[in-house]
Amino acid sequence: MTNPYEEHLPKCNANYQSLTPLSFLERAATVFADRPAIIHGQTQLTYNEFWQRSKRLASALTQFNITPGDTVSAMMSNTPAMLICHHGIPMCGAVLHAINTRLDAEAIALQLDHADTKILVVDREFSEVAEQAVKRASVTPLIIDYDDPDYPDDAPKPKGPLIGLSEWEDVLATGDPDFIWRRPPDEWDAITLNYTSGTTGVPKGVVYHHRACALMAYNNTIHANMSQHSVYLWSLPMFHCNGWCYPWTLALTGSTHICLRWVRAAEMYRLIAKHKVTHLCGAPIVMSVLLNADDSEKQSFEQSVNFNVAAAPPPESVLAAMYDAGFMVTHVYGLTEVYGPAVVNVWQEEWDHLGRSERAIKQARQGVSYAGLERLDVMDPNTMKSVPRDGSTLGEIMMSGNIVMKGYLKNKAATDAAFQGGYFHTGDLAVIHPDGYVQIKDRSKDIIISGGENISSIDVENILFQHPDVASCAVVGKPDDKWGETPIAFVELHAGRTATADDLNAHCRANLAGFQCPRQIIIEDIPKTSTGKVEKFKLRDLAKQL
Amino acid sequence: MTNPYEEHLPKCNANYQSLTPLSFLERAATVFADRPAIIHGQTQLTYNEFWQRSKRLASALTQFNITPGDTVSAMMSNTPAMLICHHGIPMCGAVLHAINTRLDAEAIALQLDHADTKILVVDREFSEVAEQAVKRASVTPLIIDYDDPDYPDDAPKPKGPLIGLSEWEDVLATGDPDFIWRRPPDEWDAITLNYTSGTTGVPKGVVYHHRACALMAYNNTIHANMSQHSVYLWSLPMFHCNGWCYPWTLALTGSTHICLRWVRAAEMYRLIAKHKVTHLCGAPIVMSVLLNADDSEKQSFEQSVNFNVAAAPPPESVLAAMYDAGFMVTHVYGLTEVYGPAVVNVWQEEWDHLGRSERAIKQARQGVSYAGLERLDVMDPNTMKSVPRDGSTLGEIMMSGNIVMKGYLKNKAATDAAFQGGYFHTGDLAVIHPDGYVQIKDRSKDIIISGGENISSIDVENILFQHPDVASCAVVGKPDDKWGETPIAFVELHAGRTATADDLNAHCRANLAGFQCPRQIIIEDIPKTSTGKVEKFKLRDLAKQL
Repeated sequence: MTNPYEEHLPKCNANYQSLTPLSFLERAATVFADRPAIIHGQTQLTYNEFWQRSKRLASALTQFNITPGDTVSAMMSNTPAMLICHHGIPMCGAVLHAINTRLDAEAIALQLDHADTKILVVDREFSEVAEQAVKRASVTPLIIDYDDPDYPDDAPKPKGPLIGLSEWEDVLATGDPDFIWRRPPDEWDAITLNYTSGTTGVPKGVVYHHRACALMAYNNTIHANMSQHSVYLWSLPMFHCNGWCYPWTLALTGSTHICLRWVRAAEMYRLIAKHKVTHLCGAPIVMSVLLNADDSEKQSFEQSVNFNVAAAPPPESVLAAMYDAGFMVTHVYGLTEVYGPAVVNVWQEEWDHLGRSERAIKQARQGVSYAGLERLDVMDPNTMKSVPRDGSTLGEIMMSGNIVMKGYLKNKAATDAAFQGGYFHTGDLAVIHPDGYVQIKDRSKDIIISGGENISSIDVENILFQHPDVASCAVVGKPDDKWGETPIAFVELHAGRTATADDLNAHCRANLAGFQCPRQIIIEDIPKTSTGKVEKFKLRDLAKQL
Repeated sequence: MTNPYEEHLPKCNANYQSLTPLSFLERAATVFADRPAIIHGQTQLTYNEFWQRSKRLASALTQFNITPGDTVSAMMSNTPAMLICHHGIPMCGAVLHAINTRLDAEAIALQLDHADTKILVVDREFSEVAEQAVKRASVTPLIIDYDDPDYPDDAPKPKGPLIGLSEWEDVLATGDPDFIWRRPPDEWDAITLNYTSGTTGVPKGVVYHHRACALMAYNNTIHANMSQHSVYLWSLPMFHCNGWCYPWTLALTGSTHICLRWVRAAEMYRLIAKHKVTHLCGAPIVMSVLLNADDSEKQSFEQSVNFNVAAAPPPESVLAAMYDAGFMVTHVYGLTEVYGPAVVNVWQEEWDHLGRSERAIKQARQGVSYAGLERLDVMDPNTMKSVPRDGSTLGEIMMSGNIVMKGYLKNKAATDAAFQGGYFHTGDLAVIHPDGYVQIKDRSKDIIISGGENISSIDVENILFQHPDVASCAVVGKPDDKWGETPIAFVELHAGRTATADDLNAHCRANLAGFQCPRQIIIEDIPKTSTGKVEKFKLRDLAKQL
C-alpha cells in the first residue's frame, strides 16, 4: 500500500535548501546590518561589511580559478581576515584548511601536500615558517599575504616579510561585493579541513561539512546561552576545530567578535571591560593566565562572563577563583572529530545548594550530549554494549550523530576504524554516572596496567593537582618486569613553590591506594604539543630511560 | 577530476542521523530527568515521565496495528495528553493530525476522511461533536477517550460522554515504557498534518516533516530568547500549527510546559505568578483578555514575560499597556504552511531611544526571517523579481527554505501552485523597508481597487484602530459600477463606548486620503473563524447586499 505522505510531496527549491552556516551571515547582513560584527584594534566591521568582504573574497578566489573541492589553506591568528576566510572560502565551494600556527615548517609542508593546497593565506606573523613550509612542500600554492593594520606594537614577534605575489587587501579589492555565493548543492559537502594535532602518530585530516556546522551554530548558541548581541572574546584559536564553530555561531544572534592575536592577561582584561565581553572559550591555560595576572594587569568589569573550558577538568580551586573573578565556568568536552564541544556539563539547579568541593566534583565531569549529538554513550568497545550507569565501570566514550565528522581525508582505513560498529570511537575511557553524566578516566592508550590492576592516570593526576604547589602534572606507565607497568609522575610546580618529590609522594600515599601511587615523581618541565596537550608519548620514552 | 572531499566519506550511522525533534525529548529525559516538564492542575510530570509516557503511547499504538504513514487524529485541549501525542504518535512512525477543537462535526468529518484517520484521541470536552463527526465520516477510527483528571470545575462546558472503546490511561498502561522508538528513516518523513483554517474555500492538509520541526525547535529557542528552565504558558492552541512547534521546542532547554485548557484572565495571571512564567504566545485576543481583566482577576508578578503575538500588528496602545503590565511583546508572522512563526520583528537597540508611537510603528511590521527560513522576500508574483526596499512598492511575500511545509496532502495541484517558481507564495501583499523589515499591507485577495487606485484594507483598518472606541474592525471592497470597488468598514466598539459611524467617518477623513475613506461604516459584530480570523468573504457578501 502506498503511503500518502510520500506521494507528490518531493523536495523542491521552495521547501528544501542545503543547511549551511553561511546563510546565517547572509541573514545577519540584513537583520544586524549596521551592528558591530568584528572588533580588532582600531578596526570595526559591521555585519554588512563582514558579509560584503566575505563575498569579495569568494569572488576573488574564483578569479584565481579556485573551484569547488579545492583547498585554500590559512595560517592566521584570530583576526578579521580569519573570520572572513571562514565564510568567503566556502562561499565559492572551496574548503578552508586552518593551519595550527604553532607547527614547524615540516609539519605544515606535510599538511599542504596532503590537502593539495591551491592557495595559502598567511598572516605576516608566520610568514617565515610558512615560506619554509612551501619550499619543502611538493605543492606550489599561490600565497596571499595578510598584513594586519592592527598588528600590536608589543607583539612578541615582529611582522615577517611579504612572501606572496598578492596582498590580502588587493585581493579583496578585485572581488565583487555582489558576488552570488554558492550554496552547497549538498549539505554533506565539505566546508573545512582540520588536521588533528594528536598526541601520537601522524596527523589526520578531519573533514567538516556544511550541515554539521550549521547545527553546531544552533547548538553553541543554546548550550553556551548566547543571546542577542552577546560579545565573544577570541581566546580560543580559530585553527582549533574552526574555533569550535564560533566563527559561524555569532551571526545567529548578531553578536560581536572581539579579536585577540595572542592570549595575555592585560589585553584580555582590557577588552573584557571595554567591550563588555559575555563569552569566551579556551583551554585551562587561559584561565591560568587570567587568574595569575598581576594586579596592574587586571581590570574590573560588571557583567558576568561565561567561560567554556575544554581539554581538562577544571580543579576546584580554579573554579572557585574564576567565580570570584567574575567568570562562570562551564566544562565542555569534544575532539576535532566532533567539531569542538559535543558534550557539555549542564548545570543542575540542585547543585546550587552544594558546597564548593561537591560542586567542583560535579563540574569536573565531562557531562551530557549537545542536542545535536544524537547519541553519547560509554561502551565496552569489544561487545559495543553500554556499561552500567554506576559511575565506576570503565568503557570507551562512543558518539553518533550529526555533529560527527564526515571522515578523514584520503584515509579510508582510519575513517572505517573510527566509525566501526556505527559509532565514532573517541579513544577516551570513561564511566557514566547514575545521572547520565560521562566522566573521562583516561585515554585508552594512557591507562596503566600494573599487577593486573587498571590505574587511571587521570585519577592519580587529580590527586597530585590537589597539592597546592602543583601547577601541571602527567602520569604515565613505565614497563616493569614484575608488575607489567608502574606509574611514574612528572610534575611542574607553581613559580616560587618548593614541594619536593618526597612531599608529593606523602600526599599521594595519604590519598591513593598503594598500587596507584607513583613509583617515582619527577619535578621538571613537561613537553606539550602546540595546542597545549601533554605529549605523553615523550614522557613514556623518558620513563623507560629512568 | 575527482573531488577528494567526496571520496570514501559517505554518510553512516556514526555521522548521520535523521533530524527529528523527538531526539530532544530523549536527551531531556537524561539531562533534565527529574525536572518538571509539564504542569497541569494537580498533575506534574518530570521529563523522564514525559518520555516514558510518550514511549508507552507509541508502543500501544503499534499494538493497535498502527504502522508508519498512518494518521492518528487528536481533538484535544492544551493538556499533558496532547503534549504526549506530539511525541508518542510520531515515535511509532504515525502522523499526528491535530484537530481544531472549534470546528463543527461536518468540518471534522471531512478532515477525518481526507486524512484517513485510523485512531482518534478525544478529550471529553469535545466528545459530543467528535461522536457526531465520526458518524458522518466514511472512515471508522478507533476512538480513545481522554478523561482529564484535572478538568476544571468551573469549565464552561461539562465533560461529555465516553464515546470510545478505550480510555487514555488504559491504553498507556498496555504500552511498554522501554519501547524502542522509531527514528524516521528519512528526516523528510511526515510528522504531523494540520488543516488550514483558511478564511475562504476548502481546508488543505499541510504536511510537516521531522527535519523542519527539529529546526523550528532550535529557531524558536533562539528567536524567543528561551534559556535553561524557561516556563511556557500554553495560551496558544496546540492544534494551531502544532502550537508553533513549541511542544518540541521546550525539551532543548529543559523548560516547563504550563497547560491551560482555555484562555481566561484570572487563571492566566494565577499561573504566571505561581509558576514564574517567562514565555507565552497567542493571537491579539489573548492580549486583550489579559489587559481587560478585572482588577480582582489580576495578580502581580516580578519576572518580565515574553509575549509572542501573531495574526495582526499590535497597535501602539496595546503595546504600551502590555509593557506596563510586565509583558515584552514581540510581533511574529507566519502561516500554517511555514510551521507557525517564520518571520520575527527582531528588536533593534536604536529603537530604545524612540518615542512610544515611533516604536509601535517599528514593531507593527512583520519583520525579518527566522534563521531557519533561508529566503524571505517581497516580489512581483508575475515576474518573480524582488521589489525595491523602499517601504512603498507592493509585492507578494515569498519564502523558501527548510521551514516551509512538505506540501498539501493528496493535493498535487495546490502544492504545485503554492510552490510555483521555487518559492512558497504566501498570498500576503507587503512592502519591504530599507532596513529589510517586511510589512504586510493586505492579503492579495483583500486589496480594494477603486477608480484604478489600490486601497490597502489594512491601512484603513489601522486608522480606524487608532480611534479609542474601536475594538475590532475590517474593511472590504463592495462592487461599484462607477469605481469598480469602494471600501466598506465593519467595526466593533469596546464595551461601553459610544462612537457613531459619523464620528468614525470624521476620524477617517482627518487621517486618510479621500479615495481611501470607507463609503460606509457599519457598527456590528464581525464574523470570525474558529481561530479568530475575520471572515472577510462573509463581510464581502454583506457589503454586496448594502
